[in-house]
Amino acid sequence: MINEKLARLFSPASVAVIGASNSFDKLGYHVMKSLVGNYRGRIFPVNPRGEKVWGLLSYPSLEAIPGVVDLAVIAVPAGMVAETLHACGRKGISGVVLITAGFKEIEDPGGASLEEEIKDIAGRYGLPIIGPNTFGFVNLSSSVNASFTSEFSRIEKGGVALVSQSGGICHLCGFLAIEQRVAMSKLMSLGNRCNVDFPELLTYLVNEDDSTKVIALYIEGLDEPRRLLDVARLFRGRKPIIALKAGKSEKGDSASRFHTGSLAGNHAIWKGALRQAGILMVATAEELLDTAKAIDSCPLPRGARVAVLSGQAGPGMIASDALEPCGLSLSSFSEETQRRINDLLPPIAIRTNPVDMGPAWYNPGNIIEILKAVLDDNGTDGVIFLAMYASANLKLAEGMVEYMKAVDPFRKPVIGCFTAPPGIWDGPIGALDRRKGIAILPTPERAARAMANLWKVSALTNAKGVRTWDR
Amino acid sequence: MINEKLARLFSPASVAVIGASNSFDKLGYHVMKSLVGNYRGRIFPVNPRGEKVWGLLSYPSLEAIPGVVDLAVIAVPAGMVAETLHACGRKGISGVVLITAGFKEIEDPGGASLEEEIKDIAGRYGLPIIGPNTFGFVNLSSSVNASFTSEFSRIEKGGVALVSQSGGICHLCGFLAIEQRVAMSKLMSLGNRCNVDFPELLTYLVNEDDSTKVIALYIEGLDEPRRLLDVARLFRGRKPIIALKAGKSEKGDSASRFHTGSLAGNHAIWKGALRQAGILMVATAEELLDTAKAIDSCPLPRGARVAVLSGQAGPGMIASDALEPCGLSLSSFSEETQRRINDLLPPIAIRTNPVDMGPAWYNPGNIIEILKAVLDDNGTDGVIFLAMYASANLKLAEGMVEYMKAVDPFRKPVIGCFTAPPGIWDGPIGALDRRKGIAILPTPERAARAMANLWKVSALTNAKGVRTWDR
Repeated sequence: MINEKLARLFSPASVAVIGASNSFDKLGYHVMKSLVGNYRGRIFPVNPRGEKVWGLLSYPSLEAIPGVVDLAVIAVPAGMVAETLHACGRKGISGVVLITAGFKEIEDPGGASLEEEIKDIAGRYGLPIIGPNTFGFVNLSSSVNASFTSEFSRIEKGGVALVSQSGGICHLCGFLAIEQRVAMSKLMSLGNRCNVDFPELLTYLVNEDDSTKVIALYIEGLDEPRRLLDVARLFRGRKPIIALKAGKSEKGDSASRFHTGSLAGNHAIWKGALRQAGILMVATAEELLDTAKAIDSCPLPRGARVAVLSGQAGPGMIASDALEPCGLSLSSFSEETQRRINDLLPPIAIRTNPVDMGPAWYNPGNIIEILKAVLDDNGTDGVIFLAMYASANLKLAEGMVEYMKAVDPFRKPVIGCFTAPPGIWDGPIGALDRRKGIAILPTPERAARAMANLWKVSALTNAKGVRTWDR
Repeated sequence: MINEKLARLFSPASVAVIGASNSFDKLGYHVMKSLVGNYRGRIFPVNPRGEKVWGLLSYPSLEAIPGVVDLAVIAVPAGMVAETLHACGRKGISGVVLITAGFKEIEDPGGASLEEEIKDIAGRYGLPIIGPNTFGFVNLSSSVNASFTSEFSRIEKGGVALVSQSGGICHLCGFLAIEQRVAMSKLMSLGNRCNVDFPELLTYLVNEDDSTKVIALYIEGLDEPRRLLDVARLFRGRKPIIALKAGKSEKGDSASRFHTGSLAGNHAIWKGALRQAGILMVATAEELLDTAKAIDSCPLPRGARVAVLSGQAGPGMIASDALEPCGLSLSSFSEETQRRINDLLPPIAIRTNPVDMGPAWYNPGNIIEILKAVLDDNGTDGVIFLAMYASANLKLAEGMVEYMKAVDPFRKPVIGCFTAPPGIWDGPIGALDRRKGIAILPTPERAARAMANLWKVSALTNAKGVRTWDR
């Protein structure tokens, strides 16, 4: 019952903001800021004073709103939440984002009993609740920012859904996503998981949400980890799932228990269990985003053999160095491939893998022909493609973007690291990054690690050669 | 003899650009672009056609320039280099940046013999040569950008010197430095190391260059590694030295041998040898920059016990998780410290380490008092300080910057991760980052790793408690 309502909750035709405010110090102000000018459905501010809020007519109560309300975002004091939820139920609302804190996460036992009470009310009306104690969610695919952080609307639209047990991690990852062009479909913070938890959201994202191609989880601790694992196993091979799990250290673990009011559990057990359920565990927030971005953009490789093509020798070397420790190897080119490369590069270059494309540096057409040759090579499963640009290389860079248009669609993952001074060449590099088949990451080593994770996901889900964008 | 001239080479009162050009396609154009409007000394373009270059009067030859020339930047074809160097010698120039390629790095044996010839000429005149086959150097402390990449002038001035055996790595690190506010003193690309190599530059940076507080090396392979190690050992404890070494894998190693024409050597031997010489080896380009930035800003810790203070629980947990694998531990607070924290945070918060400062979130004064309490704690050697800001937290963020002014000077390293949407809050976060005693890095995990490296450098150089900015 709750699952059926989630599609409407995340793509509502109308939103009521209960506790909407014109005062900067209220979260209801920031929720309005996130919606106004961005969300294309109807917005109903609810405020007892009846004044205009953010220039919109407000209503003294939910009941006073004419017509249907799909989503209610609640930012009122904890003591008013129960009656507000009753009003939501009576109004026939599809779902609630409950931003208000002060429930089971607080030491006062009153918090836990209040949470039991709202769980009970939600159950009575079959009302899915994101939260309490959440910043909300952002559905980039339908331009619904139902959170108190308006800046999340600046994330590019794409296929990465993040489901996080921490609002702080959502903010960390969301801001990194803006900087690093990780294109996202959803950003969801679970809060106290009243009745919407990982399993419900995974089911929605896999079954109901076409815009989501890869699911990234941040997990602290769960009361019933089995439920998450069962759902993941059920969906294995449908959409890749990757996870960052807090609580590696004993102390981190105890902090996690404290914070979420639930058992974080032994890290080694978690790692094995996630793996068995087809979920790849990663080590850091950055790796979570890098990997999700690569999966969203690139086909999954059929093996671990990688070609490294580099505009300058040094970055090619550190990328090559990074392969082996993460389970990849440098591919050996076939005679045919080597012949094609030799035709494009003079003998002074390193023409074997890693390829130093330096001598072709002023001929972007040749650089793209070298890329094509290794994409055609049967012994190569993926390509790491590196170049450092400055303004002296502007024409080359633009030429490469132009020639790259002929390399479509990619049949193998291409992970690039194209650095340039901020602002100087963001346009062309961004355009390349947005191309399906290629993902651009900030350093050669991070490109290598993401390639390794593509291969791990490929092996784990037995989805070799599959492209997220063909699904 | 060469060492004595390096100080003048890197801080010249006048620069001649031989091969200066008005044509975008020539490197001499980009060298002029790097100097004009940035460099405060005299610029003499040398161009046989005698036309104005970048608006400046040009000279048909070096001889035609009236008065003293300290530095000559040479960007002419390889065949013209020998005669140009003779002219430099006759003119009494202090040093040369030889951008021209086509020497021992090429397969044609003519390249190697040409390099022998120029080495010989340089020796005859006692002329230090950076290069050949280099993009040049940037001396941010004296605003000399003697390279073909004008954008390097956008790097902030600070204490990090990068000496690299690869121009590509210089570009990677230089552009990352702009983005991540790594404040640098020098950016030097060795090229083929005609007669200026790591030992000469280390000697200059340690003995002659007050602006450099920490030295970051990128090493591919050396003919005489002993010379580098001997110099490093000699300077041990003077200025911290950290290194990224290419050639970890066998194939990467062979590529490095090929590229530099010298032996890269077994990685394990390198690691031990660098350690014995007091040089910390790091694993990635990002770690090289993060660590250098932390050393430049923070005092070196006296131990490995770390307090984690976080505005949101999640980021605090992943920072705590990251400590143990890199050799750090969460500190245990003294009763006095715990009492001070308990006075500032309500019981609902996690008040033990890692501290969840969430409940003090709207009181920046209290947050800074918590920081002071752990800085005073005898069992704590360093602090990781985390907060994720959005526009809703603007006042808090500004308040924190204001209150932070009272925490000066820091006696222990504080490594922060303060994320915010790009552009929204760069000013205040940047201001905080520029404060001595605190370094801001992009993620909690990278903050933890940099703290671990501070401790490793502290232990390796026996320089516990030392601040780079007191030197």
